[in-house]
Amino acid sequence: MRGCGVGGKADGETVPYTSRMTTPPKSSAILLVDCPDRKGLVAAVAEFLYTHNANILHADQHQDAERNVFFMRVEWDLTGFDFDLTDFPAVFGPIAQRYSLRWKLERSDRRHRVALFVSKYDHCLADLLYRHRSGELACDIPLIVANHPDAERWATFYDIPFHVIPVDGANKAAAEAKQIELLKQHNIDLVVLARYMQILSPAFVAEFPMRIINVHHSFLPAFIGARPYHRAFERGVKLIGATSHYVTDNLDEGPIIEQDVMRVSHRDTLDDLLTKGRDLEKGVLSRAVRWHTEHRILVSGNKTVVFD
Amino acid sequence: MRGCGVGGKADGETVPYTSRMTTPPKSSAILLVDCPDRKGLVAAVAEFLYTHNANILHADQHQDAERNVFFMRVEWDLTGFDFDLTDFPAVFGPIAQRYSLRWKLERSDRRHRVALFVSKYDHCLADLLYRHRSGELACDIPLIVANHPDAERWATFYDIPFHVIPVDGANKAAAEAKQIELLKQHNIDLVVLARYMQILSPAFVAEFPMRIINVHHSFLPAFIGARPYHRAFERGVKLIGATSHYVTDNLDEGPIIEQDVMRVSHRDTLDDLLTKGRDLEKGVLSRAVRWHTEHRILVSGNKTVVFD
Amino acid sequence: MRGCGVGGKADGETVPYTSRMTTPPKSSAILLVDCPDRKGLVAAVAEFLYTHNANILHADQHQDAERNVFFMRVEWDLTGFDFDLTDFPAVFGPIAQRYSLRWKLERSDRRHRVALFVSKYDHCLADLLYRHRSGELACDIPLIVANHPDAERWATFYDIPFHVIPVDGANKAAAEAKQIELLKQHNIDLVVLARYMQILSPAFVAEFPMRIINVHHSFLPAFIGARPYHRAFERGVKLIGATSHYVTDNLDEGPIIEQDVMRVSHRDTLDDLLTKGRDLEKGVLSRAVRWHTEHRILVSGNKTVVFD
Amino acid sequence: MRGCGVGGKADGETVPYTSRMTTPPKSSAILLVDCPDRKGLVAAVAEFLYTHNANILHADQHQDAERNVFFMRVEWDLTGFDFDLTDFPAVFGPIAQRYSLRWKLERSDRRHRVALFVSKYDHCLADLLYRHRSGELACDIPLIVANHPDAERWATFYDIPFHVIPVDGANKAAAEAKQIELLKQHNIDLVVLARYMQILSPAFVAEFPMRIINVHHSFLPAFIGARPYHRAFERGVKLIGATSHYVTDNLDEGPIIEQDVMRVSHRDTLDDLLTKGRDLEKGVLSRAVRWHTEHRILVSGNKTVVFD
Repeated sequence: MRGCGVGGKADGETVPYTSRMTTPPKSSAILLVDCPDRKGLVAAVAEFLYTHNANILHADQHQDAERNVFFMRVEWDLTGFDFDLTDFPAVFGPIAQRYSLRWKLERSDRRHRVALFVSKYDHCLADLLYRHRSGELACDIPLIVANHPDAERWATFYDIPFHVIPVDGANKAAAEAKQIELLKQHNIDLVVLARYMQILSPAFVAEFPMRIINVHHSFLPAFIGARPYHRAFERGVKLIGATSHYVTDNLDEGPIIEQDVMRVSHRDTLDDLLTKGRDLEKGVLSRAVRWHTEHRILVSGNKTVVFD
Repeated sequence: MRGCGVGGKADGETVPYTSRMTTPPKSSAILLVDCPDRKGLVAAVAEFLYTHNANILHADQHQDAERNVFFMRVEWDLTGFDFDLTDFPAVFGPIAQRYSLRWKLERSDRRHRVALFVSKYDHCLADLLYRHRSGELACDIPLIVANHPDAERWATFYDIPFHVIPVDGANKAAAEAKQIELLKQHNIDLVVLARYMQILSPAFVAEFPMRIINVHHSFLPAFIGARPYHRAFERGVKLIGATSHYVTDNLDEGPIIEQDVMRVSHRDTLDDLLTKGRDLEKGVLSRAVRWHTEHRILVSGNKTVVFD
Repeated sequence: MRGCGVGGKADGETVPYTSRMTTPPKSSAILLVDCPDRKGLVAAVAEFLYTHNANILHADQHQDAERNVFFMRVEWDLTGFDFDLTDFPAVFGPIAQRYSLRWKLERSDRRHRVALFVSKYDHCLADLLYRHRSGELACDIPLIVANHPDAERWATFYDIPFHVIPVDGANKAAAEAKQIELLKQHNIDLVVLARYMQILSPAFVAEFPMRIINVHHSFLPAFIGARPYHRAFERGVKLIGATSHYVTDNLDEGPIIEQDVMRVSHRDTLDDLLTKGRDLEKGVLSRAVRWHTEHRILVSGNKTVVFD
Repeated sequence: MRGCGVGGKADGETVPYTSRMTTPPKSSAILLVDCPDRKGLVAAVAEFLYTHNANILHADQHQDAERNVFFMRVEWDLTGFDFDLTDFPAVFGPIAQRYSLRWKLERSDRRHRVALFVSKYDHCLADLLYRHRSGELACDIPLIVANHPDAERWATFYDIPFHVIPVDGANKAAAEAKQIELLKQHNIDLVVLARYMQILSPAFVAEFPMRIINVHHSFLPAFIGARPYHRAFERGVKLIGATSHYVTDNLDEGPIIEQDVMRVSHRDTLDDLLTKGRDLEKGVLSRAVRWHTEHRILVSGNKTVVFD
């Protein structure tokens, strides 16, 4: 469910947070399929769901003609579905095997557990926490990890445990080990780098393949690496951008999830670029997190399919 | 097929028009479904297509939860499909009946026949003809109808019959009768008002329900009616817009197909608004025509579902 | 100075808020001129400033050819300026008289005092307070006025006095009297309606002419009045918008300061529109507040000239 | 004068081209200044113009604080100006010397002479010619130079001399010599590469410093060089772009004039990118040509100041 369910009442007033939080989201199942394209895939899945009395809420598919890959996302209401999802592998297995489907099942009432990583810049952190609080992000945020204490005020305000793990050249491996341990303790599904200014080691990335989202403050592949706004300013571009992407071992080269740009002119100083950029970063990162936690993103090679 | 297949060769050179025109588009069938939502619809259609060896190229669906309406667009390659499309009603009929489906079948090799209406402003006309010539618009344009002779140069350049039918208060009914006769003679599927400055009578509209596309030079529903740029200029808006929509009996109130806007400031004169607006008009009208001729638009009440 | 001066250091880390707050902004003077156009205006002002050793930082002018009005904004560094600004009326008066200039002098070190009005929706409030804290908004915010207690958490977090003044049909006049008294006690220069859901009386508006900024959640003049997102959803628009404007006695018809839009499709629910709209509202309102507090806006009839 | 002066009449009809062409544009002078910043520059220029009874139509200035450079563009109506522009160097010289101003004088009735270079892709050519014909581009186009015959239809349609000069590895120097000779014969001020697919030699570029405008089909500095859309498609970007810039000896690295982007998704094929890209290219190239021919662009190092 996108949107946050606020407002819409005739007097134009919002439902207070508390009551919003208590209305439980409708319980639905989401099946993600990603396999070599062949005839009958849609029929097989649709027939299976119909047989078991599934009420389909949304269905999207995509064929990557270039790679001959088929992608599908089906979401159905669990009310009336005729068997328990714990039996899904057993019941769906044979069909999957017959059509050599690669599949993943998610359920809307099993919310993703997300860890936010931050350094000193706190605009993306504050933005994500506000959106989470207002119901835009259907996930749980059990902890915030920082390499600087500055952002603690937000953890306190939103009442989320805040862990400061300083990182420097010398202790990096130890620091990452401590971070990974924390993430495992809390059964974290997704790591969000909310302007976290440290580069993660391949070892860390390997622990969370396609489950780490970063925001880079440029329109990738332009200005990969450090100080992109400074380089954009020096180059004299007329638009600045920001990009959210999955983290891989190659810096800023993982699958792109979302990008956005804003117009700049000779009147804009470097500070203006930094200021405008913060709004771009908040937008592309929060959309990426929402899409991921709603199971709308499928990775295809180094690209993403986003069923928004 | 979107895009025009030009370029992309290593030397960066395009294939000349002529050869582009000779490569026949792959022949495919497009099934459009629009009916009350119920379980099993996707399964029924997918199963039917699979049984008859259809190779699905694209499939989109949408559920309008508010009105409980189901929309579907499936496109499949006709190569290998196991019966002739002329038998489609007979073969598909029973399934349609069982699930009370409302459906329409189109085939990519039966191109829509489009009539362009124009007055004196020729920017949309010139733009549509260029896009058609370059392969962007998969339709035939057997005639251009004008109430002024000015645009004839374009008809001549693109070698399309040009009919001038002057319209004034007195002869309007007669002029429309003549226009309708022409359109029927040429088996026109779609009428495109490319800045045609006359309002069509309900009688004319009734002849082509949801088959007349107009471009209005404002961001509807703002500035309905005459001289929208002048009123936008007077109001001091910071963005100007344009809208393409299906024509109904209510002026500028038909289903919206596409909209776009451009930023303006105090530095922009009224002429600047008119100039910027022309680019907006070209964009929203050409996209609407492309989507309609590719059978991507379904009308739902006074809204459109665009499977782009 | 636009932007907030954060970041930009080689290690990519930001300066902590506290130290940012202590660096005083360079002290400059801003002269705003708005008068019938005539020859020699620029020469007269430029000559005057040069004579008094002003180091011009920015200068913008605009001629409204339609109304024959001249607008100018000049900002100069006060370092080296050869007389005290308290004498400005006396020293500049004669020139102003000779050229019948209408003028206003502002100084960057005399920050505007801004009151934020809020109801229950707190996204614009939270956004403005974050931008203020991060240095984006060069103003003081001595108080927040609300007709509901919900937003108090933000006042507490940012340590700003929070006044709850309930408003209903019966007590409206009394409530407004109380609000006005508060605003005067705190020498408020600008009132910002951050999704404040009450309509102000002409009497209130008269107290702060062109000094009340409202955000309307539609692309004005479309959907003036109540529940614009609902009406946009019903109309089936393909873009939704938001508008910030000065408040006058005519609801949603005051001079427009800024507008922005976002694309929507048939896939977007009403909740999605509300969610996307919140981001639009934050953007257009915060830009309007920044421009106003930086003295970049001149009102011309019912339009604005924004020297950004 | 921006915009083309069409339309705006109550009956919504445009003035036919011919009559539009006969209304002569108001004759004005444009002074461009670009020099080290210092006090008194504006006063000196404004005072000078006032003394000679200039009626200023537009004035813009910019201070590049980083490089301490001052930029100014002043346009004034020549009616009533008290001396002939042929004497401008003599009359303005002393002031320029006193303030060490670097300056250039243009007059609106001395239209720039523009040569269009094209290969096979003709969308930018057709777009520029249409805009020129409709009055959007205040310049003369005495010739079109092509390395392929394909685009001749447009030259014929718009009645502009068309010169085919084939270029291959062997004859490149000779071909360029022939091109340069043609350009000099026709006193060309500006060369526009309308998707001209040959790289110009440093010798050619040296003949027209900052007087050659190219359009690159990517969002520079992303995808410099060949086949940018293919590389954008492979990278999986979510926005594609186009850039217009002045040509220097470094491929795609000259001062950027204008950039624009369009959203793409996994549904877009490579052909869709090429199609969308054509619209971006038309927009950024035509705006660059308009700004250049209206003397709105000043080059500062490798950046542009655009007084739009």
